[in-house]
Amino acid sequence: MNGCVSLALVHFPVLDRRDAVVGAAVTNLDLHDISRSARTYGVRSFYVVTPFADQQQMVGEIVDHWTTGHGGRNNPDRCEAFSLVRLVDSVADAIDDCTRFFGKKPLVVATSARRQENAIGVGTLAREQKKDRPLLLLLGTSWGLAPEIVRQSDHTLEPLMEKSSYNHLSVRAAAAIILDRLSGALP
Amino acid sequence: MNGCVSLALVHFPVLDRRDAVVGAAVTNLDLHDISRSARTYGVRSFYVVTPFADQQQMVGEIVDHWTTGHGGRNNPDRCEAFSLVRLVDSVADAIDDCTRFFGKKPLVVATSARRQENAIGVGTLAREQKKDRPLLLLLGTSWGLAPEIVRQSDHTLEPLMEKSSYNHLSVRAAAAIILDRLSGALP
Repeated sequence: MNGCVSLALVHFPVLDRRDAVVGAAVTNLDLHDISRSARTYGVRSFYVVTPFADQQQMVGEIVDHWTTGHGGRNNPDRCEAFSLVRLVDSVADAIDDCTRFFGKKPLVVATSARRQENAIGVGTLAREQKKDRPLLLLLGTSWGLAPEIVRQSDHTLEPLMEKSSYNHLSVRAAAAIILDRLSGALP
Repeated sequence: MNGCVSLALVHFPVLDRRDAVVGAAVTNLDLHDISRSARTYGVRSFYVVTPFADQQQMVGEIVDHWTTGHGGRNNPDRCEAFSLVRLVDSVADAIDDCTRFFGKKPLVVATSARRQENAIGVGTLAREQKKDRPLLLLLGTSWGLAPEIVRQSDHTLEPLMEKSSYNHLSVRAAAAIILDRLSGALP
């Protein structure tokens, strides 16, 4: 892709199974899988969003292990993927970081397994992105992004398999599919 | 999809990082992610291939927990996904099971991050599959399927992101992307 795409994996605020707003724990394999997919498709940054100090410490230790530590020396490919990870407190901080880097505010697009009012397809998204506007894709953990995050986003991506009778992809699978579709739609 | 597609996640024989043929341990999250992706895209069966008794016992316990056990009662969506899992000793057994079910031998297609001699694209594969021939897609764990499995397959799928400078997707991400592309190419 054209280096203007970033991902954010959001652990707060997200929904639990009863639609209550909660903070989710970080899953180690999310960091591995999504950073590998991000690196494969030329994503600029992979933001891991959590405001919780203990979670931030754990993410920091995992990232250090796979970049400057033994894991990175032993597996340079994994080091390359983990080098994309940026740990931030909030979605607002991820947006600010993108804005500072690119010198303009990114188009912020939330993803959801449920259709939202401001939903657009990958084709439309690729056309917007071709205007050289940086793009920040938000992925929710747990039962998905809290409504306040969806409302504050510029758009929501259409559900990936709306026609399926089963709509429960893992966030790792969804991230991979979104990047693959976007890569196919972009020049 | 049209109900003729099956997946097999192969733990033996696969390659290690030095290209030696080995058996890999089963990763719990592979079962979750790939069964969820399989159910989303209408895959008939998800074969978990391992000849090792201790690994088979572990897979059996995980599958039982999420189908007939507490996990399945607590999370019916996960039960629905895990219901697709079939535990088999070998790729040959997966092929035999497909053959028995459909009354004809499936087209066996290996996947690989490296281009192989018998590589075809998803479009070609979708055209072959439209002739109502059942299709069995083989996914390798560890550093990928052993050469003997690739040689015995009818085709190999082209690498997903051959043009990328980084070619290290997780098997969970690769499975999701393959199903999504195939679903887009099939009627």
